[in-house]
Amino acid sequence: QVQLTSMYGRYTEELGAYAKEEAARLREAGVRRHSVTKRARSLELLENDKGRCAKCRICTVRCQKFLISCVGEDWIFLILLGLSMALLSWLVDIGIGICLQSQKWMYVKLESNVFLQYLAWVTYPVVLITFSAGFTQILSPQAIGSGIPEIKTILRGVVLKEYLTFKTFVAKVIGLTCALGSGMPLGKESPFVHIAGLGAALLCKFMSLFGGIYERSCLPYEGHANESRNIELLSVACAVGVSCVFAAPIGGLLFSIEAMSTFFTVRNYWRGFFAATVTAFMYRILAVWNRDEVTITALMPTNFRQDFPFDLQELPAFAVLGIASGLGGALFVCLNRQIVQLIRNQKTIKKFLMKKRLLYPALVTLLVSTLTFPPGFGQFMAAKLTQMESLETLLDNETWSKQGIPEEFDNNSLSQAWKHPQVNVFVTLTLFVVMKFWMSALAMTMPVPCGAFMPVFVIGAAFGRLVGEGMAACFPDGVHSDGTIYPIEPGVYAAVGAAALSGAVTHTVSTAVVVFELTGQISHILPVMIAVILANAVAQSLQPSLYDSLIMIKKLPYLPELGWGHHEKYNICVEDIMIRDVMYITLNCCYRDLHDVLLAGHLKTLSMILLGSIERVQLQALLSLQLGRSRRLKYLRDRATAEKSVVSHPSSKDGSTMGNQEVHFQVNKVKIAEWEENQLDEQVNFDNCMIDPAPIQLVERTSLHKTHTIFSLLGLDHAYVTSIGRLIGVVSLKELQKAIEGSVAVKGVNVRPPLASFRDSGASGTIMNNENKARDLHKLWNLLSSCCSSNLPLHPSLLYPSSQLAFGPYTYSALMEEGWTHPALSPTRTEEIWVLGRGEEGWVKVPLLNKGGQNKMYRICMV
Amino acid sequence: QVQLTSMYGRYTEELGAYAKEEAARLREAGVRRHSVTKRARSLELLENDKGRCAKCRICTVRCQKFLISCVGEDWIFLILLGLSMALLSWLVDIGIGICLQSQKWMYVKLESNVFLQYLAWVTYPVVLITFSAGFTQILSPQAIGSGIPEIKTILRGVVLKEYLTFKTFVAKVIGLTCALGSGMPLGKESPFVHIAGLGAALLCKFMSLFGGIYERSCLPYEGHANESRNIELLSVACAVGVSCVFAAPIGGLLFSIEAMSTFFTVRNYWRGFFAATVTAFMYRILAVWNRDEVTITALMPTNFRQDFPFDLQELPAFAVLGIASGLGGALFVCLNRQIVQLIRNQKTIKKFLMKKRLLYPALVTLLVSTLTFPPGFGQFMAAKLTQMESLETLLDNETWSKQGIPEEFDNNSLSQAWKHPQVNVFVTLTLFVVMKFWMSALAMTMPVPCGAFMPVFVIGAAFGRLVGEGMAACFPDGVHSDGTIYPIEPGVYAAVGAAALSGAVTHTVSTAVVVFELTGQISHILPVMIAVILANAVAQSLQPSLYDSLIMIKKLPYLPELGWGHHEKYNICVEDIMIRDVMYITLNCCYRDLHDVLLAGHLKTLSMILLGSIERVQLQALLSLQLGRSRRLKYLRDRATAEKSVVSHPSSKDGSTMGNQEVHFQVNKVKIAEWEENQLDEQVNFDNCMIDPAPIQLVERTSLHKTHTIFSLLGLDHAYVTSIGRLIGVVSLKELQKAIEGSVAVKGVNVRPPLASFRDSGASGTIMNNENKARDLHKLWNLLSSCCSSNLPLHPSLLYPSSQLAFGPYTYSALMEEGWTHPALSPTRTEEIWVLGRGEEGWVKVPLLNKGGQNKMYRICMV
Repeated sequence: QVQLTSMYGRYTEELGAYAKEEAARLREAGVRRHSVTKRARSLELLENDKGRCAKCRICTVRCQKFLISCVGEDWIFLILLGLSMALLSWLVDIGIGICLQSQKWMYVKLESNVFLQYLAWVTYPVVLITFSAGFTQILSPQAIGSGIPEIKTILRGVVLKEYLTFKTFVAKVIGLTCALGSGMPLGKESPFVHIAGLGAALLCKFMSLFGGIYERSCLPYEGHANESRNIELLSVACAVGVSCVFAAPIGGLLFSIEAMSTFFTVRNYWRGFFAATVTAFMYRILAVWNRDEVTITALMPTNFRQDFPFDLQELPAFAVLGIASGLGGALFVCLNRQIVQLIRNQKTIKKFLMKKRLLYPALVTLLVSTLTFPPGFGQFMAAKLTQMESLETLLDNETWSKQGIPEEFDNNSLSQAWKHPQVNVFVTLTLFVVMKFWMSALAMTMPVPCGAFMPVFVIGAAFGRLVGEGMAACFPDGVHSDGTIYPIEPGVYAAVGAAALSGAVTHTVSTAVVVFELTGQISHILPVMIAVILANAVAQSLQPSLYDSLIMIKKLPYLPELGWGHHEKYNICVEDIMIRDVMYITLNCCYRDLHDVLLAGHLKTLSMILLGSIERVQLQALLSLQLGRSRRLKYLRDRATAEKSVVSHPSSKDGSTMGNQEVHFQVNKVKIAEWEENQLDEQVNFDNCMIDPAPIQLVERTSLHKTHTIFSLLGLDHAYVTSIGRLIGVVSLKELQKAIEGSVAVKGVNVRPPLASFRDSGASGTIMNNENKARDLHKLWNLLSSCCSSNLPLHPSLLYPSSQLAFGPYTYSALMEEGWTHPALSPTRTEEIWVLGRGEEGWVKVPLLNKGGQNKMYRICMV
Repeated sequence: QVQLTSMYGRYTEELGAYAKEEAARLREAGVRRHSVTKRARSLELLENDKGRCAKCRICTVRCQKFLISCVGEDWIFLILLGLSMALLSWLVDIGIGICLQSQKWMYVKLESNVFLQYLAWVTYPVVLITFSAGFTQILSPQAIGSGIPEIKTILRGVVLKEYLTFKTFVAKVIGLTCALGSGMPLGKESPFVHIAGLGAALLCKFMSLFGGIYERSCLPYEGHANESRNIELLSVACAVGVSCVFAAPIGGLLFSIEAMSTFFTVRNYWRGFFAATVTAFMYRILAVWNRDEVTITALMPTNFRQDFPFDLQELPAFAVLGIASGLGGALFVCLNRQIVQLIRNQKTIKKFLMKKRLLYPALVTLLVSTLTFPPGFGQFMAAKLTQMESLETLLDNETWSKQGIPEEFDNNSLSQAWKHPQVNVFVTLTLFVVMKFWMSALAMTMPVPCGAFMPVFVIGAAFGRLVGEGMAACFPDGVHSDGTIYPIEPGVYAAVGAAALSGAVTHTVSTAVVVFELTGQISHILPVMIAVILANAVAQSLQPSLYDSLIMIKKLPYLPELGWGHHEKYNICVEDIMIRDVMYITLNCCYRDLHDVLLAGHLKTLSMILLGSIERVQLQALLSLQLGRSRRLKYLRDRATAEKSVVSHPSSKDGSTMGNQEVHFQVNKVKIAEWEENQLDEQVNFDNCMIDPAPIQLVERTSLHKTHTIFSLLGLDHAYVTSIGRLIGVVSLKELQKAIEGSVAVKGVNVRPPLASFRDSGASGTIMNNENKARDLHKLWNLLSSCCSSNLPLHPSLLYPSSQLAFGPYTYSALMEEGWTHPALSPTRTEEIWVLGRGEEGWVKVPLLNKGGQNKMYRICMV
């Protein structure tokens, strides 16, 4: 260790020369962390010191070391994450509760004057929502929306770093509390998944201060392992996020797996289970400490009959409920996307809203809260109740419609809100379902942190209750044919409806488990599962899931799922979908080839016998090293000294120095061009280049099914197709996506999933057409080529290290007109900007040419 | 299509010559199934026919086509599988019930004479177990044991075809019914996982008769896709298997994922959920139809208090129960392995048992049933109750020990069996736990189809009950400090104990969900989950899971799990563990190189710049084509005609024909050797060879973590390590296994999981030491080399296409002495046999030299 320490000492001192030598030694000596060695060194120094309090200090250092090794353990991390997220969830709950209470308080206090009452009822949520939207917009626009689509994309392997920052965390938590405190039909669940993900990322960073595995490692390949670990922790965080909203550890874990992963590591299951249990436990025990509860029970305990949970003859009703929920779920996803599309496509609306950013949420809130004003229309839809209260009443095991007599309600119970002196319970429920349905779909489009799970869950419960009350009215003595009377319990239908509708919207079946854990009863397991499965089957054949729909709207890079049972997928091979004209360089190529490849565009591989793939930046570095400033200067200096030695001999100390210099300058210019040409013709030295020698290779006959599996398993972006080592093509996410969506014609046969045509007609105009995309791309390409040929400046910072296109120049106002937004974009600025990869993936970076000539990369996002 | 049809016609007629041409055309024309085209052809013929009932026939053919396309759908398959497995499970239940009833009946009828009673009580199970063992042994030895280890291995990617045959199915079902009917402490759950897997495989085969995707495809690469589909269906079948035993769809699915997969495809989750629900529904509805139940409820419904399920102050007791269960689970796994090891290692015992195969199960049964004889020792451990009955009584929500007065029991209830006039309930429960513990571990080693889940579950419940009764005795008024009295419910402890112990033995946390579904109550979710997590943490740090232990005992090829939180794993790179001296051939090598490589041994790759990997059989085929009989004959014939034409001219019709022929023969022999040498020096023509052009490649610095992930994701057997295209090493499962188990010293630092040393000391002598293995391997290698050098016959059939060793000759009796068994092995046979790969993986093939000189490959297995 002494030797090692001194080695490290030298390492930092004489970095340049010893770097290579050290790398080899490092490999042999195993990987030791800098900090550890530093600490070891300080310990040694202390031991050599032998001062008065040296022993004391040694002891503390040792303790510190032990603690740090403990902190490195996974389970400590998981417990910390679970506890902090549960606490946060509880605090957010309290914040929301206070907001909602004060609205109610105002409403009650102003009962004397209906107009003032209305004003208070409406202004309060408008202010909260506007604050939430403004605060989020200013602090971190990434905090807007649900968060699950982004987390899903990150888990897919795409790095979206700006989504996991401290700013986003603060914006999301405060924005969410305000948005939910307004009483709008918004959910807490999906934002909390994002918050838990943020929490995990920040906790990782925080714990890296103490060293251990959290520290960034120094070896280049190590980064990958760390990354995969981070992704594993992130997927655990998702389970924590769901778990601390519903206090449903198992359901939370399963929901997070289903909604967010394509492949799941079973070794991660244990972690998720552990963290979710800690979270749920902490979340519920906080309620006990707060004297809200006597002991730990379910969040929303029900009291359904256990010995005879349901009659077999009720099953058709449950099945119908499931199918209807499936249709409803598909409709919800479609409606939400149509609203977004409408606002985006209407140029006048868009322009107006672009100027007044906070107007849209304020208007939506105004509309929704006006309609739910309790003395007004709200009296017909139990608008007095908060979301949780209505869910509680819907799961009640009393039958509301026995004889239609409202006196049967307990006067103190919340269920009273559903009764109305004039209208029937059925009308109230129907109105509630219909109104909340479009309100939720609309509210979700507001630029505040919000989710849709909870509103959909409540709507499903109301719909289930409606069906249940209907059944109870039709069969007042139950449907059982034997002597014993088992009356129908509409509360069970509500639970089934909630699971089915939320399952249909999110395309998950785990909502069934969430319902069991939420209600604390599992005896009605079979109706719930049958309804959920039917709802999923219907919804999946009609529409993508809400999260996939949001991914498409936000144009995040994604890989669609392979449908089940489409066996045509097994017959498409990768050679049918790959791109055949791959740009490549060979090991013995010269710098001119490098130059040409870099100018021409997008791809990067080596040699026809595929030796490896190399990143674009690496090539740029090579080229700039060869033609760079230092070598250029050196050449000039050498040249100058050589000439001087020639010149200085014949004529010395002449008056013609000035003229000489001018000539020199011109000669140099010519000579530099000549030198450049020579340099370009030299063979490339790849020795110090980082070549990835084993990029993923496929064979021509690899089936689409297998390709999809490999891509999703390894989180690939692209893969090379080889035939006995010879490179013959390349496949990227885009090609795969096209093939799965069915737009690839395999030798004349257009392979499409069976129900795709139906889905397309519903989604036409919403999902960008692939053919159009390709045409756009082609246009851009031509634009770029003309740029290159006309010697327009192709700024080096634009050469983005992935296979994306660069084009420009753009004006700020043109960009904003297209619907892109970023704090850095304002119509007053005049500089030209360059856009990267726009149109191809909808994934964009803008370098801003500031006054100092520096560039900054920004991600801009569509409104 | 007409053209296509005729093409296929030609294809079958002139197979040899047109094969290559056809392959190219097939690729262009897309993959169409033979049968479909055939049917299309017949349809066409019919249409041309225009006979009387032609229309009728056309109609039927069309209907048939439609039905077939339906049959191809996944959901039809899943419903069929679910229904048939539920029916089978129900029938097996009935069979077991009849067996158990008749034993009870005999016992009751013979009450007058204790000796006769004992005889009947003991003989009946002995006969049943002996029949089960004998029947299974004769019909299919693969049906012996649990089945989960084999299914796990198959899901890992290793093909064990003999485990999925119809014979095994019949043997397993009948053997299981008899074994469980004997009343021994055996389980139904793991064998049913195997049975469901068998069912899925057979259903696949059966449905392939109707065409569709089930049909074997003709393209070489298609096989892979089909294989991955089969594996996906198999993993669904596991969920079905668990689901139809406990009627627990969610728990079944989760348990099957956790116990059997390393990575789980989320798209398969839906399928599993669907199939498991169908199964559970069918299984429970059969009970309703059979008038056992009024409606569908949980299998073993409990009636625990719901409003106040448990007090927070009871949590420490649950935690202690969990930790104790963890220790117990580890002990159970260890005990079971020690018993197997003891029998295997004791030469005298082994020899004796080898001769009398059925004696061992009979002896074990005799011992167990003697000890459980109700009037004897059985009275102290409720031996009158069957497994399910004791579980039912243990989950009872009455407290048994209130004042220790036995009168409190309801006289009609089954719980009466636990009371004893002289001894306390605590003694009864303790005796039950201790006795059943070793009995179950012992009974599991019998060669009958059996599982351990159910016995362990019951033992756990009894242990939990014991703790619960203790708590109830200590705190008769409950532990709550407030005014209200909530007495402690020992039944909850029983449920917690059952989940914890079964979770500890199988290393799963999903047993918690199984308990919820089994009891129909989820209100006690937190204590169950805490106990299960603690039990898992303890058990996982002490012992492998029961299934992994069985995998080790059976020496199946496996890949151990990466522990959690062992961050040293991130620092090991593949270059630390790979084999560096890889055998390779180049594209321009000659046949002699091929010959040498084949003789030398085990590996197969091409060229230093890795172009692809080629299977050993392919090389053999190439070599035999070059040196084969037909070419040899042709050469001789050519030679002969050439010589004849030379010879026939000078002297015709001489008397020296006989002598001439002899000379010819000798000349030919010499010449053939010469010809062979020439042939070997020719360059190899790889055109018709199936080279896999894209074997999985890793880089030197790929971390162990990543390597493990890639291996488990893609189910790899081996991977090549390359550096800029150059092949520098190879890593197989074995190396990876070693590295994970910690026996690889990375540059002087021995990297071991933290608790491995503790685990090793417990497992010493049980798991074959890797160093010893390597030494054995070396010895075998030397033996083989000497065989080769001394020109001993190295039979071509021994060149097995995987990287395994061949050695011999062996005698039958020697093999049997070593503990190998197969119907084909008998001590009376005298031929020499050759064994493949023995000692390396414990995975063995024996070619038998029959009288006709033919060889057969058999898998022999250790008893």
